[in-house]
Amino acid sequence: MPTTRILTGITTSGTPHLGNYAGALRPAIAASQRADAESFYFLADYHALIKTGGDPARVHRSTLEIAATWLAAGLDTERVWFYRQSDIPEIPELTWLLTCVASKGLLNRAHAYKAAVDKNLAEGEDPDAGVNMGLFMYPVLMAADILMFKAHSVPVGRDQIQHIEMARDIAARFNHLYGEHFVLPEAAIDESVATLPGLDGRKMSKSYDNTIPLFSSSAELKKLIASIVTDSRAPGEPKDPEGSALFELYQAFSTPEQTEAMRAAFAGGIAWGEAKQALFEQIDTAVAPMRERYQALIAQPELIEARLKEGAAKARSIATPFLAELRRAVGLRNLGSAIEQRGGEKAKAAAQPQFKQYREGDGRFYFKLVAADGSLLLQSVGFASPKEAGQTIARLKQGAAPSEAADGLLLDGRPLGVLAGGATLAAVQDALARLAG
Amino acid sequence: MPTTRILTGITTSGTPHLGNYAGALRPAIAASQRADAESFYFLADYHALIKTGGDPARVHRSTLEIAATWLAAGLDTERVWFYRQSDIPEIPELTWLLTCVASKGLLNRAHAYKAAVDKNLAEGEDPDAGVNMGLFMYPVLMAADILMFKAHSVPVGRDQIQHIEMARDIAARFNHLYGEHFVLPEAAIDESVATLPGLDGRKMSKSYDNTIPLFSSSAELKKLIASIVTDSRAPGEPKDPEGSALFELYQAFSTPEQTEAMRAAFAGGIAWGEAKQALFEQIDTAVAPMRERYQALIAQPELIEARLKEGAAKARSIATPFLAELRRAVGLRNLGSAIEQRGGEKAKAAAQPQFKQYREGDGRFYFKLVAADGSLLLQSVGFASPKEAGQTIARLKQGAAPSEAADGLLLDGRPLGVLAGGATLAAVQDALARLAG
Repeated sequence: MPTTRILTGITTSGTPHLGNYAGALRPAIAASQRADAESFYFLADYHALIKTGGDPARVHRSTLEIAATWLAAGLDTERVWFYRQSDIPEIPELTWLLTCVASKGLLNRAHAYKAAVDKNLAEGEDPDAGVNMGLFMYPVLMAADILMFKAHSVPVGRDQIQHIEMARDIAARFNHLYGEHFVLPEAAIDESVATLPGLDGRKMSKSYDNTIPLFSSSAELKKLIASIVTDSRAPGEPKDPEGSALFELYQAFSTPEQTEAMRAAFAGGIAWGEAKQALFEQIDTAVAPMRERYQALIAQPELIEARLKEGAAKARSIATPFLAELRRAVGLRNLGSAIEQRGGEKAKAAAQPQFKQYREGDGRFYFKLVAADGSLLLQSVGFASPKEAGQTIARLKQGAAPSEAADGLLLDGRPLGVLAGGATLAAVQDALARLAG
Repeated sequence: MPTTRILTGITTSGTPHLGNYAGALRPAIAASQRADAESFYFLADYHALIKTGGDPARVHRSTLEIAATWLAAGLDTERVWFYRQSDIPEIPELTWLLTCVASKGLLNRAHAYKAAVDKNLAEGEDPDAGVNMGLFMYPVLMAADILMFKAHSVPVGRDQIQHIEMARDIAARFNHLYGEHFVLPEAAIDESVATLPGLDGRKMSKSYDNTIPLFSSSAELKKLIASIVTDSRAPGEPKDPEGSALFELYQAFSTPEQTEAMRAAFAGGIAWGEAKQALFEQIDTAVAPMRERYQALIAQPELIEARLKEGAAKARSIATPFLAELRRAVGLRNLGSAIEQRGGEKAKAAAQPQFKQYREGDGRFYFKLVAADGSLLLQSVGFASPKEAGQTIARLKQGAAPSEAADGLLLDGRPLGVLAGGATLAAVQDALARLAG
């Protein structure tokens, strides 16, 4: 059975909370035990720099906390690849190679970027006000993360599907230009994975300030659970599990049987205080053993550092030779190696006739049409504006046919230009047909 | 006397021509001999990937030719730093660090990008049609090239001044966020450096297909010079040196005395053929010794490769420790080191009150105002659209003052929201003043 490579990254910009655990860590660790999978887990600290500008201690602390969390949650680092993104210098280098093939139009359509623009517009600001290039380039870095290790499958939430599609698009473009080097990744959406509600009932998220940290002390955990928003039904009144944050949290840490028992208790009018106590016990029981390992780990950060360095060496044993292959592919080569001549289908596809536009000393705007072999075919008349020259080119690309007159070529009855010495109208028509086709 | 660092890169996407030599190489080599300067020269092969998509052999060949040209032209690699960009992995990594502080609005204004957009618009295309992210990100990579080596001075043509300004802008932003790490570079414009005309009289440039390769054979050189466009004045007729490509080329390879003699010959009616012969002899004499060294070098590419590898080691002896410093600054740190607490002026400057916008389950749009210490100050009423919520925030940021009414706060006489438990109107006003200031 062929092995599937699964890749998961967590951005190191915050403190892990229960939502991260149930939504990402727990399923990832379960997946790492599959016999038919090779799992890659990384601390996305280059990504963290996008949002943490000016707060280096936050990146440092979060990286430590998230690394300790993965290890405390039971990641078997012998079996999987576990590394910190910034320990792999091949990743920013690959990011540049991909930058040179990614189309800007693709990135313009990224949801996260568009949301920032919409927010600016709503506030009457410039569309790109406060947008840093990290936000705009995020999908290219993420493509490098995925493509570097030829991951087949990337477990993501629905909001991240687009990024996987972009990685596929960029990979396909690179493969088209330089040969088949990259595996095209697929997004893996696990519908059964819970999005946990936070203290206020909205999705648990740092940006809503409604999180329950994964490794609070028992006392803090109890206090936070007590603050979960509920309705005002009194003890004895039946309660609706539907839409209850408390119930959803309970379910995320319980067996189906336990969940059914709690559903019955809701129907039977369990008091909110009693339900909160049950939830506290359920989570505390699940978290307690991890919490102990976590505290032991976090007290010895140099051991975590050493584990990450081992992981980096393991990851680079893949990344280094693969990047060398990619460098050769794009032309970053040892000069002592023989220079290949261009050839093959790709080179032929790349050699196309071209329009070249320029302005002359007379202040007018010209273009010429150059054949695929570089020879000049047509020299235009001078146009009053670049727009007129551009529209004429557009007409020609759309299939408008020039005709020959006594003193040059005409298009739509107006002077177009002259054939270059040695060029024929047939050669011009042939070049235009290639551009149109 | 303090030493000035001068940095020059040449993109490895073409064959060096006389224009490159007179405009860039010759002045750079002269500058490298200044006692008060440290000179950095590099082969910009990451930049070359932007324009050469799908033509790896061109990058490979051009890198070899340009490296051999620098060496043949007399670069003293013991004295200067001479390296290939893609041998310095710190450069793409620094590019990412800078990407996270560069504002997108800055890059939107880059001339090269805007020219591509204008061309698309003139042709009736989508503004970003065919634009790759390499073109858009070019100024960030160039900033990394310059800032990596703390260059003070970057000799550039007028069309490149903007890129140096962008590098300054990005460096200043990084220094503001993370402390004073970067030197702000200056553009050095040498008005005396010639922009050579090409065979057709326009600026000598690969894109006009009017170049004279620096290392053509004598026979080829003679043939190309014979094809330089002149007017139709007969032998014996006085000729105007003003605007004559032939005269300008002669001047670029002559002493002032020789130039004056040619000016007199023009006035005296020298035949074009004779003037072309004089130009050929002048250039051939200047180029011949270099041509011989160039041919010897290009026949031993492995020796050039070895020189570049030595140069890379020398350059990395600066880049590696400096990048380590920058990584610590942004928070990419050894986990075994102590986590710093936030503090100092910068941290205070970064901790600002914030508006947070979100949508509730009722379908309406809300915001809250959070104090610099993270405590909630104000919870808005629900708005029908994100635009209304955004405009209200904008009003508050512009200094509009909320007032207290019986059932909450008002702005411009309309309901605004409620104070959070424990918050006062004074605290809200204080936060708004900080945001406005």
